[in-house]
Amino acid sequence: MYKRQVGIGPGTPDWLTPHAATALEKADAIVGYGLYLDLVADRIAGKDHYRAPLGAEEDRVRQALNLAAGGRNVALISSGDAGIYAMASLVFECLDAGGLDDGAERIAIDIAPGISAMQAAAARAGAPLGHDFCTISLSDLLTPWAAIEKRLHAAAEGDFVIAFYNPVSRRRRTQLAAAKDILLRHRPADTPVILARNLGREGEQVSTVGLDQLNVDDVDMLTLVLIGASSTRQVRAAGRTWTYTPRGYEKKRTSP
Amino acid sequence: MYKRQVGIGPGTPDWLTPHAATALEKADAIVGYGLYLDLVADRIAGKDHYRAPLGAEEDRVRQALNLAAGGRNVALISSGDAGIYAMASLVFECLDAGGLDDGAERIAIDIAPGISAMQAAAARAGAPLGHDFCTISLSDLLTPWAAIEKRLHAAAEGDFVIAFYNPVSRRRRTQLAAAKDILLRHRPADTPVILARNLGREGEQVSTVGLDQLNVDDVDMLTLVLIGASSTRQVRAAGRTWTYTPRGYEKKRTSP
Repeated sequence: MYKRQVGIGPGTPDWLTPHAATALEKADAIVGYGLYLDLVADRIAGKDHYRAPLGAEEDRVRQALNLAAGGRNVALISSGDAGIYAMASLVFECLDAGGLDDGAERIAIDIAPGISAMQAAAARAGAPLGHDFCTISLSDLLTPWAAIEKRLHAAAEGDFVIAFYNPVSRRRRTQLAAAKDILLRHRPADTPVILARNLGREGEQVSTVGLDQLNVDDVDMLTLVLIGASSTRQVRAAGRTWTYTPRGYEKKRTSP
Repeated sequence: MYKRQVGIGPGTPDWLTPHAATALEKADAIVGYGLYLDLVADRIAGKDHYRAPLGAEEDRVRQALNLAAGGRNVALISSGDAGIYAMASLVFECLDAGGLDDGAERIAIDIAPGISAMQAAAARAGAPLGHDFCTISLSDLLTPWAAIEKRLHAAAEGDFVIAFYNPVSRRRRTQLAAAKDILLRHRPADTPVILARNLGREGEQVSTVGLDQLNVDDVDMLTLVLIGASSTRQVRAAGRTWTYTPRGYEKKRTSP
């Protein structure tokens, strides 16, 4: 009885850790959203696949736990880091809620962290996460908008670099525009905003715009949106422009 | 002329990505703090090493850039993620400041992200980063304490899970205690706090205490401190206690 939660990174085998690769290799049952299974198709060929549609996360997790309870070695796959806006917390929610097959609460659990989209986006763009940052999911499916709005105000007040996960969906278009309006009250109009899509995959796109130029129609549900803090700046080097956040507010090159 | 910034993960080869491993393999000059070089000793044997003492970060980065300007293929090593409280942002600061050897601004730059300590700590403890979180460095060497304090208040107001980097040093003992006092005004006394040390290395220690029990003397400069949000909770499963932050404030199991 064994269950592994595997973060596979945002899409390239280059970012799949040996920890996650070994977990995939040892598993005999693979559970996950179809797109994520496709990203590691070579590694899981010949194993039992349990594909779930997007949105059926809880069913997927319960299935994984019940398969493990039945003696299978299960890998539950998330893109990015399994612990960041992914399946790991839902595993513990389901264990907490109960109602699983006998023995599910006694399975061994191993969590393999992974490179999250914000880290991949940051590496491509420069070093925007070089100082204090926060992550906010703009999805109000599970979190009331009032709570998200409160966090947006707090992040703005605190001058954090912000990584937005789930910025929009096909039906959910207003949250990112509202976030932009809140942030523009605190940050300069030319604050760098990084839009990153298909990181490490074919068709990778990373672009930078000023905060006031952020257009919701340029963002889809697979886009990671990274908003600079007031100190985030740009430099030209190696034939292109890089975005970075210095380590401190002030350069203090002397005295400890 | 080539420079690679390599995040090697918090200490186990299990968390070193193929991207970072390849960068180490291709490099002919390795620059970094001695402890981090020791973590990848096998991979960099026979290459030129440029070890720098802790605290001489800027000298180290300038040396790396100048070596690359001179035609060397240089790997500048950070523990964790090179882009998170590490060397990548300092590279761009130095390029911005100038005064480097001829050609340094034209070198190719490739950044390999890595598993940061908060991700490793989270994976060991459960899924505390399962909802919105922020990172705050408590070091006031480069950031004025007033700015750090402002971020602490904002993080508390926003009810973010918080990862503290650089929580204390030998001489710097007051910041973590001040942070605890601020957070206790907003969060329950039994809010889970995860202390993680030597992640993925021999002597790995991960413990959880209540916020009011957080003792600065249990924390050293290599400890990652992770403070739960008000929704962070614990569950017993697989013979131990796990800490996780549910995806939403309220369980909303029906309707999209």
